[in-house]
Amino acid sequence: MRNENCFYCSGKKPLSDLMTEVIQLNFSTVYFFLDQKNPGRCVIAYKDHYRELYEIQEADCCEYIKEVRIVARAVSELYTPDKLNYAIYGDGVPHLHLHLVPKYKDGVSWGGPFSDKLPVVHLSDEDYISQIEQLRRHISKIMEVNK
Amino acid sequence: MRNENCFYCSGKKPLSDLMTEVIQLNFSTVYFFLDQKNPGRCVIAYKDHYRELYEIQEADCCEYIKEVRIVARAVSELYTPDKLNYAIYGDGVPHLHLHLVPKYKDGVSWGGPFSDKLPVVHLSDEDYISQIEQLRRHISKIMEVNK
Repeated sequence: MRNENCFYCSGKKPLSDLMTEVIQLNFSTVYFFLDQKNPGRCVIAYKDHYRELYEIQEADCCEYIKEVRIVARAVSELYTPDKLNYAIYGDGVPHLHLHLVPKYKDGVSWGGPFSDKLPVVHLSDEDYISQIEQLRRHISKIMEVNK
Repeated sequence: MRNENCFYCSGKKPLSDLMTEVIQLNFSTVYFFLDQKNPGRCVIAYKDHYRELYEIQEADCCEYIKEVRIVARAVSELYTPDKLNYAIYGDGVPHLHLHLVPKYKDGVSWGGPFSDKLPVVHLSDEDYISQIEQLRRHISKIMEVNK
């Protein structure tokens, strides 16, 4: 189920300005968020164009959440945040997607909502490549263990 | 699994200053958020003291999410928001709880994160009682249909 006006469905801009694909799972695509002011921040987008959690078939929603759990565990193990934040907003882009945002006691937005209005932090190309590859491998490893 | 320093576990202040219980489900307690600047806002707290989604047993996590879906459907049907926001933060209060925040195109924080820094909006006692009762009944009805 696709919506050509939705950038998660079409893969068109501004998707590539905001995030880079890490891995496709059975029920979701995992993206690495290019603004890394919260180190390890990702997006986990549902495979089809749904707006609300309860609109997805129950079993499929559980499978999606299982994938969110795996990515959350991978990010926790690699980045060791003090807390993860999980947010499905979508007022502007209603395709169901979850922002997985690691929070650090000495980092930005600790104790409050994470914010896209603070100055962005970009990495070097080498750092994006190595961190995305590391995350892809770690997600795959956890998937394999969970089989 | 309880933590006596956690207000979701103990039920102590400031819990009652922030929210009122709507209904206990098998894996969560649903609260009506007293600040109703986003009409219909609730909290769905997991029954035990866990921090992260992946720390809960997989099957229990799916049951929790099924309850989140039911409450989300109930709030959608009663309040007809333009979008629901679902957020698990917990930097300050790490007991796993999800803020279910209805967003309205002509309401506060549309297109951005909901905020607890904007002026609070309280209802009359009669309105709290009637809205909480209505929500309790609607959640129970959906639970019954889903059996």
